[in-house]
Amino acid sequence: MTSPVGLHRVMEPAGVLPQAAHRLDSNPQVGADEVRIRVERLNLDAASFRQLFDKHGGDGAAVRTEVLDIIRNRGKMHNPVTGSGGMLIGTVDQVGPASPLSLKPGDRVATLVSLTLTPLFVTDQLAEWDGRSEQVPCSGHAILFARSIAAVLPDDLDPLLSLAVLDVCGAPALTDRVVRRYIADGRSPTVAVIGGAGKSGSLALAAARRAGAARTVGVVPVLAERDRLRAAGLATDVAVADARDPVALSTAVSAALGAAADITVVCVDVPGCEHGAILSTADGGTVIFFSMATSFAAAALGAEGLAADVTMLIGNGYVPGHADYALSLMRREPEVRALFEARLTAD
Amino acid sequence: MTSPVGLHRVMEPAGVLPQAAHRLDSNPQVGADEVRIRVERLNLDAASFRQLFDKHGGDGAAVRTEVLDIIRNRGKMHNPVTGSGGMLIGTVDQVGPASPLSLKPGDRVATLVSLTLTPLFVTDQLAEWDGRSEQVPCSGHAILFARSIAAVLPDDLDPLLSLAVLDVCGAPALTDRVVRRYIADGRSPTVAVIGGAGKSGSLALAAARRAGAARTVGVVPVLAERDRLRAAGLATDVAVADARDPVALSTAVSAALGAAADITVVCVDVPGCEHGAILSTADGGTVIFFSMATSFAAAALGAEGLAADVTMLIGNGYVPGHADYALSLMRREPEVRALFEARLTAD
Repeated sequence: MTSPVGLHRVMEPAGVLPQAAHRLDSNPQVGADEVRIRVERLNLDAASFRQLFDKHGGDGAAVRTEVLDIIRNRGKMHNPVTGSGGMLIGTVDQVGPASPLSLKPGDRVATLVSLTLTPLFVTDQLAEWDGRSEQVPCSGHAILFARSIAAVLPDDLDPLLSLAVLDVCGAPALTDRVVRRYIADGRSPTVAVIGGAGKSGSLALAAARRAGAARTVGVVPVLAERDRLRAAGLATDVAVADARDPVALSTAVSAALGAAADITVVCVDVPGCEHGAILSTADGGTVIFFSMATSFAAAALGAEGLAADVTMLIGNGYVPGHADYALSLMRREPEVRALFEARLTAD
Repeated sequence: MTSPVGLHRVMEPAGVLPQAAHRLDSNPQVGADEVRIRVERLNLDAASFRQLFDKHGGDGAAVRTEVLDIIRNRGKMHNPVTGSGGMLIGTVDQVGPASPLSLKPGDRVATLVSLTLTPLFVTDQLAEWDGRSEQVPCSGHAILFARSIAAVLPDDLDPLLSLAVLDVCGAPALTDRVVRRYIADGRSPTVAVIGGAGKSGSLALAAARRAGAARTVGVVPVLAERDRLRAAGLATDVAVADARDPVALSTAVSAALGAAADITVVCVDVPGCEHGAILSTADGGTVIFFSMATSFAAAALGAEGLAADVTMLIGNGYVPGHADYALSLMRREPEVRALFEARLTAD
C-alpha cells in the first residue's frame, strides 16, 4: 500500500515525510499511485547552487562530485546545508493504475514539488554538466507520488524557459494574492521587490503591477541589473542597494516610494536580508520571504527587536493555479520574457 | 551619535543590526538615547535552553560555562546554534537624556526585545544558577536602545509570573489578530494549538477562545499534560500526539475538530514540527509558527511538496499592545494563571 505523500519511500528516519527524510528509496518500480519520470534536466535551487559553488571556490568538477554524492547518499537532490533542492524536467515513462495526476506516458513535464522530496536516481554521472550552472543535464529517473504536482510543458514556449518560470511560479501567484487582499480592503499598496531583476523578482513585479499596486520599486545590487530592469519598464522605479545592509536597503526603498513599502517581497538568494526587508516595510505592512536563504529566527527576532508591526509570510511554493498564472505572465508581459530569455542565454 | 536601533554597539561585522552581529559592545556608559538596566534575572528562550541542556546531557555546570562563554564572547546571550536568546528582568539604573522609552531610574522592568540584540555584561559568573532551568539569576548590566521595548512590571502580579507571560506575549496577540481577521471575513474559525499546555500555547488557546474561535484543540505530547490542560478547561478538546510525527499529529487534530484546522498555532520548542502543522491545516487555512526551532526551508518546501494552500506566518514577537493584552489575559483567565503558576513552581 503506497502513501499519497510518499511515506513508503522514506528509508530513514521512520515516520517523517519525504522532505524531512535523510534518505529516500529511489527504486524505479512504481507503486499503484506513483509515476516514473525519465529525467532530462535538473534545475538546482539558486541558494543551493550558490552554496555549493562558493564552497568549492567555483571548481565545477568538485561541485558535480558533491551533487552526485548527495543524490547517491540521499536518494534525492537535497542540499543538506541550505535545505533546498530545485526541480526537474523530463518525460513520463510509466503511470501507476491508481495515479490521480492525469499524466500519460510521453508527456513532457516539469515537477512542481521540490527535489528535496523527489526520489531520484542518476545513471550518467552528470557527465554532460560542467558544474558551473544551475541547469544540470541529467539522465536517470524520478518518482512522483499521488499528491505531487507536475505541469505538462506548453508547446508554445521553449522548455528551458518554461522550466525557469515554473521553478519560481509560487512567487508571482502569492504576490498577486497579497496585493489583491490590500485592494479588497480598500487601498492600492506600494510594493518593493528585493532582487527585482531576477527570475522570481521580475515575475513578482509583473504580478504586483497587474494586481493593481499603486507603485513598485525593484531593488537590485549592481548598476548593470538596474539598467536592465529600468529598460524592461517593469517597475515604477529601480533602486540599487546591498540587500544585506539594512540601513542602505531601507533608505533606498523609502527614497523610491516616498515612504516605507506596504508590501516587501524578498527574492534574493543570499543570507542576511531579513532585517533590511523588515526595516523597508511600513507599520502594518507585509513582508513575503521567497528566498530559501531566509532565517526564521533572524526574521522573527529581527521584527521583535525593531518593534516592527509587520506580517511576515513564509513564501509557500504552492498556490492553486500558480503554474498557469506564471506561464500566462510570460506570454502577456514581453518585458519579463525578455529578461528571462537574456538570463537563460547568459547561463 | 547613537543609532535608535543600536548600530553604534555593533562590533562585528560592520553595518548589520545588533541581532545579526557576532559581537556587541556591552560598555556600561549610556548614550544620549540609551537606558542601562541592572539585571536580576535572564529568562532563556526555551529552544535555546533545551539545545544547551541536551548538548551537555543535562550537566548544569557545563551549561552554565557555555552560557558564560557566549555572553563574554558575543556581548549578548545569543545562542549561535538556535539563533535565539530570551529576555531579562531588572531595574532601571540610568536613563540617557534623549531616551524616548518613558522609563525612570528605579523602575522594575522586563525587556520585550530579544537577548539576541541586547548588550549584556555579567559580573557574578552566574554563581546563583544551577544550569538546569531557563530562569537564570544574574548580576550585571544590559543596555536598551531608543527603539527597544521594555514593560514596567505590574504591582499586582508576581514578577516571575509577569516575566514568564511577557516572554511569550507576542503569541496571544497575534493569535487574537488572526482569529479576528477570520471573523471579520464572516466565519468563526477552528484553532489547533500544538503545545497547548505550555506558556505560549495556553495563552494562545485563551486568546483564540476570547477572540471568538468556533472550536479549539490543544495538542500535547504526554498524558500528564493532557490531564492538566483538560482540567484547566482552556480548549474545547485536548489531544495527545507527537508533533514531530506528521501523520499522528494531523490525525489527532482532525479527530478532535472533525476536520483539519482553519488556524494552526505551533508553540512547541522542538525541531521538525513543520510538516505536521501543515498537514493539520485545512486548505485556505493559516499556520502561525511561534517556535524558534522552526526551519524556514522545511516549512516552505513542506507546503509546496504537500500541495498545501496554507498561509504561513512567521510569529512576530511584536504586536502593538501585546504586553498589556497578555497580562490582562493572566488577570482574567484564572485557568491560564493556574497553569503558569504550576509551571513556575515545577521549575
